[in-house]
Amino acid sequence: VTVSERAEAAIITVGTELVTGMRLDTNTQSVARALRVAGFVVREATSVPDHEDDIAEAIARLAARFGLVVVTGGLGPTHDDVTREAAARALCLPLERRADLELALAAAATRHTHSEASRQVLRQADVLRGATVLPAVVGTAPGQVVPTALGRLVLLPGPPAELAPLLASVLEDEGSSSEPVRLRTTGLSESDAQVLVSRALSPFSGVGFTILAALGDVEVLLFDDGAGEPQLVAAGHAARSALGHFCYSTDGSSLAETVIATARARGARIGTAESCTGGMIAAVLTAVPGSSVVVMGGVVAYANHVKSAALGVPEAVLREHGAVSPETARAMAAGVAERLDLTHAVSVTGIAGPAGGTPEKPVGLVHFGVYSEGVLTADHRHFTGTRDIVRVRATAVALDLLRTALETD
Amino acid sequence: VTVSERAEAAIITVGTELVTGMRLDTNTQSVARALRVAGFVVREATSVPDHEDDIAEAIARLAARFGLVVVTGGLGPTHDDVTREAAARALCLPLERRADLELALAAAATRHTHSEASRQVLRQADVLRGATVLPAVVGTAPGQVVPTALGRLVLLPGPPAELAPLLASVLEDEGSSSEPVRLRTTGLSESDAQVLVSRALSPFSGVGFTILAALGDVEVLLFDDGAGEPQLVAAGHAARSALGHFCYSTDGSSLAETVIATARARGARIGTAESCTGGMIAAVLTAVPGSSVVVMGGVVAYANHVKSAALGVPEAVLREHGAVSPETARAMAAGVAERLDLTHAVSVTGIAGPAGGTPEKPVGLVHFGVYSEGVLTADHRHFTGTRDIVRVRATAVALDLLRTALETD
Repeated sequence: VTVSERAEAAIITVGTELVTGMRLDTNTQSVARALRVAGFVVREATSVPDHEDDIAEAIARLAARFGLVVVTGGLGPTHDDVTREAAARALCLPLERRADLELALAAAATRHTHSEASRQVLRQADVLRGATVLPAVVGTAPGQVVPTALGRLVLLPGPPAELAPLLASVLEDEGSSSEPVRLRTTGLSESDAQVLVSRALSPFSGVGFTILAALGDVEVLLFDDGAGEPQLVAAGHAARSALGHFCYSTDGSSLAETVIATARARGARIGTAESCTGGMIAAVLTAVPGSSVVVMGGVVAYANHVKSAALGVPEAVLREHGAVSPETARAMAAGVAERLDLTHAVSVTGIAGPAGGTPEKPVGLVHFGVYSEGVLTADHRHFTGTRDIVRVRATAVALDLLRTALETD
Repeated sequence: VTVSERAEAAIITVGTELVTGMRLDTNTQSVARALRVAGFVVREATSVPDHEDDIAEAIARLAARFGLVVVTGGLGPTHDDVTREAAARALCLPLERRADLELALAAAATRHTHSEASRQVLRQADVLRGATVLPAVVGTAPGQVVPTALGRLVLLPGPPAELAPLLASVLEDEGSSSEPVRLRTTGLSESDAQVLVSRALSPFSGVGFTILAALGDVEVLLFDDGAGEPQLVAAGHAARSALGHFCYSTDGSSLAETVIATARARGARIGTAESCTGGMIAAVLTAVPGSSVVVMGGVVAYANHVKSAALGVPEAVLREHGAVSPETARAMAAGVAERLDLTHAVSVTGIAGPAGGTPEKPVGLVHFGVYSEGVLTADHRHFTGTRDIVRVRATAVALDLLRTALETD
């Protein structure tokens, strides 16, 4: 199946907050990604305010061009939720109140003391004639799948937590029902990942892939584009092996989740000693639910006197080698491991910028120390980019060094 | 000027990466926000792939409906940058190569060894007949303002750093040229801010406002909607005073930037002792350039033995009151202040969830300690929401407690 033969689709996100810039639209990206993996080509994604006219016009225009139109938002119980009415007008179909839905909503409606509010809640039981109802998994607003001349119009609620399960249920009936293969990597550029995966996939036909790149993290998504499940799995193995040690998870886990899981599996006690990342590594690790089993804590040693007082870095090391040096990085890792009683620790000391660089130690130079059950090692990187970019990249490298230490001992 | 009398506009963002979900579209939000402040109502925002047909169709359709259409993306030098050609086709205008632009681009073009690549670079000198050129401030791609039957079509480059200055230069010629008043607050809900500001603005006509809400941070933007600069300034004072102590900055500074600036102004040495926020407060503070002058460091004391070993929290306090208690919070703040030689410190200990809650100490309960030049105080909040939400809200409260301590001593 080539791209031009894939079914075409459009996305409409509804909400005045989206076109006034009051809220960032993240639904377009999540729906687009899901449609791509399910085998569709999205030709247009449009956002319109909560006006029945604008929504109806967008639906009429796009349903006349594309076999699949997915609309998110405007299905809630408030007076500005008018997607149902707009869709009915655009497709010239009546709205019919479903008794079963009304009954389920009645409980919610009685919570409102204003009769106007309870009247509005019951509008969520209005369904376009001929539509299939997608019962709400989270929240109260059901979704609807409405047949159109070219295919289907799918109405879904706007809140991402309500949208996700209904979108998944609509797309699981599509031709491409295989779960995509997710390979997450760190330490590779987007273009390097692209080259490695393209090469690995050349013997396979009918397997598509897409790359989602963030700072210090590149995810490769392989999806079934006609090859079928066994070929997709084989292609996944080939791509995984081409990515080598850069690939840290095959189940969607983040790098921090991988570190925590690996540490739990071997009963490690981990921690951090941070200078230029200023607490980011600890914050990312402790964002993982359950991390308290393995993360003991850390020290943010921003000032030099804190590196000595709280981590025991000898003043002579700081004087002779400087705060940004392999010697200081190693001493920081050893110091935090000893004081917090850790089995594994990582340390970071570098120059995040914008000021503080010298010809010998430029902005972006970052040294790392690793303590691994008594063994101390050091590593370094020279990052380019803003202060934020240096800090985020340094955090990814530190987590990856910790992962490697936990995996290879 | 009422909203219905305001000029209507549309936004087109161009890029295959946007409709495939490979990249999140942030340009729509930034352009929408700028247009709103400049007095426009955005009726539609659409994203299309890098196909000349799709882009031309969107431009033709929206330029026929709205007086202002802003297009971002597709102006670069690669073969899939086809916005110029699409706009020319949509408006039936020829593209003309400008000799002055070509000369400026020639230097960039000679860097490419392939003649095909240098030919592509020079396409950035192609301008629609009758268009005004907006010279590139960042990067090489100039913008264009093209007269249309109803108004103007504005073509801008996609990379946010290149887009921002050109968008500002286009909009500064608009009727509403006053800079908006920016009031940033923390501790207020979006709806409370809305009520307070609406009430404060009722004596003023011709001043519009919009609210940008994030977790623990609500920004109120007042803009000139016909009132003129002096009235806008007066309205700004009224709104500022209605928001009271919740308002932490009037120049766009973030809460962390405000803390750092306040600490610098009084020569303070600050730091953190964090349990459930796990390093987030330190990370947010050290994200501010120049923060190393006032931020000495901090301790992430996730495990109880670290609270004792690294912060000196007495074991008896932990045993009798528990880790999540005002007593422990105060001892953490005192401990980090003493060990890191600080003038001001904040501590956080709470239950971020999802596990770990009890009837007496439920998930979301967070205690804070503040050390301010020898004086210890405590405070607490009970947040609702996920682990991430509890941590982000706790970080905002901790920073606000630090701000208050630094301001009021």
